[in-house]
Amino acid sequence: MALIVQKYGGTSVGSVEKIEQVAEKLIAAREAGHDVVVVVSAMSGETNRLIELAHRIAENPDPREYDVLVSTGEQVTIALLSMALIKRGCPAVSYTGSQVHILTDDAHTKARILDIDESRIRDDLNAGRVVVVAGFQGRDEHGNITTLGRGGSDTTAVALAAALQADECQIYTDVDGVYTTDPRVVPNARRLERITFEEMLEMASLGSKVLQIRSVEFAGKYNVRLRVLSAFEDGPGTLITFEEENMENPVISGIAFNRDEAKLTILGVPDQPGVAYRILGPIGEANIEVDMIIQNIGADGTTDFTFTVHRNDYERALGILTRTAGELGAREVVGDDNIVKISLVGVGMRSHAGIASTMFKALADEGINIRMISTSEIKISVVVDEKYLELGVRTLHDAFHLEQAPAA
Amino acid sequence: MALIVQKYGGTSVGSVEKIEQVAEKLIAAREAGHDVVVVVSAMSGETNRLIELAHRIAENPDPREYDVLVSTGEQVTIALLSMALIKRGCPAVSYTGSQVHILTDDAHTKARILDIDESRIRDDLNAGRVVVVAGFQGRDEHGNITTLGRGGSDTTAVALAAALQADECQIYTDVDGVYTTDPRVVPNARRLERITFEEMLEMASLGSKVLQIRSVEFAGKYNVRLRVLSAFEDGPGTLITFEEENMENPVISGIAFNRDEAKLTILGVPDQPGVAYRILGPIGEANIEVDMIIQNIGADGTTDFTFTVHRNDYERALGILTRTAGELGAREVVGDDNIVKISLVGVGMRSHAGIASTMFKALADEGINIRMISTSEIKISVVVDEKYLELGVRTLHDAFHLEQAPAA
Repeated sequence: MALIVQKYGGTSVGSVEKIEQVAEKLIAAREAGHDVVVVVSAMSGETNRLIELAHRIAENPDPREYDVLVSTGEQVTIALLSMALIKRGCPAVSYTGSQVHILTDDAHTKARILDIDESRIRDDLNAGRVVVVAGFQGRDEHGNITTLGRGGSDTTAVALAAALQADECQIYTDVDGVYTTDPRVVPNARRLERITFEEMLEMASLGSKVLQIRSVEFAGKYNVRLRVLSAFEDGPGTLITFEEENMENPVISGIAFNRDEAKLTILGVPDQPGVAYRILGPIGEANIEVDMIIQNIGADGTTDFTFTVHRNDYERALGILTRTAGELGAREVVGDDNIVKISLVGVGMRSHAGIASTMFKALADEGINIRMISTSEIKISVVVDEKYLELGVRTLHDAFHLEQAPAA
Repeated sequence: MALIVQKYGGTSVGSVEKIEQVAEKLIAAREAGHDVVVVVSAMSGETNRLIELAHRIAENPDPREYDVLVSTGEQVTIALLSMALIKRGCPAVSYTGSQVHILTDDAHTKARILDIDESRIRDDLNAGRVVVVAGFQGRDEHGNITTLGRGGSDTTAVALAAALQADECQIYTDVDGVYTTDPRVVPNARRLERITFEEMLEMASLGSKVLQIRSVEFAGKYNVRLRVLSAFEDGPGTLITFEEENMENPVISGIAFNRDEAKLTILGVPDQPGVAYRILGPIGEANIEVDMIIQNIGADGTTDFTFTVHRNDYERALGILTRTAGELGAREVVGDDNIVKISLVGVGMRSHAGIASTMFKALADEGINIRMISTSEIKISVVVDEKYLELGVRTLHDAFHLEQAPAA
């Protein structure tokens, strides 16, 4: 008998009929002898309906009240799913984030989980109940309702699995696992049997939208066995594990990409200590997340500094950077919001030379101009013009033969 | 400067536009120098939408989960109203019933308020905020979400007013006060400047649906000054007060009526101690509420026993009573679900003789046959055939000159 935390997203609970199907799956897991905790999102469409109501009231709704509003979405789902279980004779009980003391910081609309008091859930499991928990939400130390931001239900599931020391955390989605890249772009993309946390982190953060990055971080940090599976068809999914010593890792596991990038460059900044902080400090204070950062030192005692942000933040970032440029006596600010990022990811690349040159050559052969390059231990990212996205991903998928499973 | 609790029902907050209007009214009250706590219901239609979802899952949804579900309705409204206030520069904060510790018993779907911890609200008021509280809901001692049943938002408002020792509790509705009777039946029905709690209780329980009866009981018990006003037009409304010694009370304050009555009679019951309990016990156990009860003792050692129930419960009550009649050896069970009840209400009738005879004569003059009579300290009720409802109410309104305000 195992303790399993399952998570179902908005599409999987998008109608009364689908909620009934989830109830059947949960009962099957119980009949297989498992204790089950289930985390659910709002029914698909519901969060958007609530956000639209908010935006009809105010362009920038108060964040605390925004959380009070949108957290009702998951609350509806937990009640309906529990009703469906109870109707089938399966004891069940629902809890909001507040009720099971999912303690977060007070960063409304993007709070982070600090602690979970799992004792109440443990009591319910011992009493034979399925425990249904609202994803995406918690409470701060003063009892205010917080939300973890979009997709945060994955994080709720992983955090609960960690707190309960669950045997596995199963994330049910509308795809049947993690692929070498997006099958809509590369038709012969292949489902991975397993992937390491580090690779998954790079894949997730770079735009493979199977799992929320924060949930993967959490799972890695707290040693939670994480599995991605389809809510609609049976199958083993993809297991996300730690790298094992005797594991033959493929050189490249997958290709991630991100359509929503924009880049900004500040040119001719007098090169002084602290200049990077003076450039990025105001951006961070405006709650704009920065992705890639590149700095080149010029010959004349000035430096050029480039970074990328989410495309939605481009205009705001440009305004802030222009003010900063004035303060720093920089020569010019330029930007481009028609760019995308493509990344090769693989723990195996640590021990293999020549990955970068193979990558750059493959892109060059197709006439794709590289605008930025950034590397880490297990990934190489390039920024290219938006129009080259599909061609670039397909070219790299072929160049590294990702359609073939690695030899055992 | 006064502390005012205002309550707006589902129609008054039924759209984003109406929520914005409520925000304006609240700001006006603040600009008049008042501290304001506001209690709101779910947007009209929302509770029904949620209930329909529940009923698509289960015919009899689990009551605990039902409360988790429907309580989201008010949570949406409090967030939207707070956003509307904050957008207008008015500091505001929303709370669910749980968050302000509206402690109830654990009778899900019809819980009763046991206690309120008003300290958090008091702190917010001191900090200059409008406090927006979800009506209709609370939590039990274990932190489970409870609801007070339909219309319970009035009770929330009165309970908060009591806990905060507010100067006035204002219930905004779609009518501009309490009338001598329903203006749809009697066009010259008159708005009452004031009415006593006792009269209001009789009016409310008899079908004048302006206020939830439980909230009036609460207001009376905790000495809360209660006022009913229109959410859509300005005006003083009707003040609900204690009877004052130097107050010249009108003999009759109003005429209430109830269309949804049905009566059942068990004839020829052997007259033994405990017979009333044996007849009404099974009815009560079936959760059928009994309104009027009349018992006559016959000449032959048997008794006739008549009571009225809500028309929706008529068939069920008839089945139960027929079984009881068999057990008791009664002669016959008869019933009628085409009846209505008309009641004269007024604290002044205590000190005036002849009210009943004036009433009975007026009805007799119009050929209206009285089927049952029941009296209390401040009301006289008659049951008549349904077809006589409008004629009966108009006749009595005229007979007691209710269209004229009483002399001061």
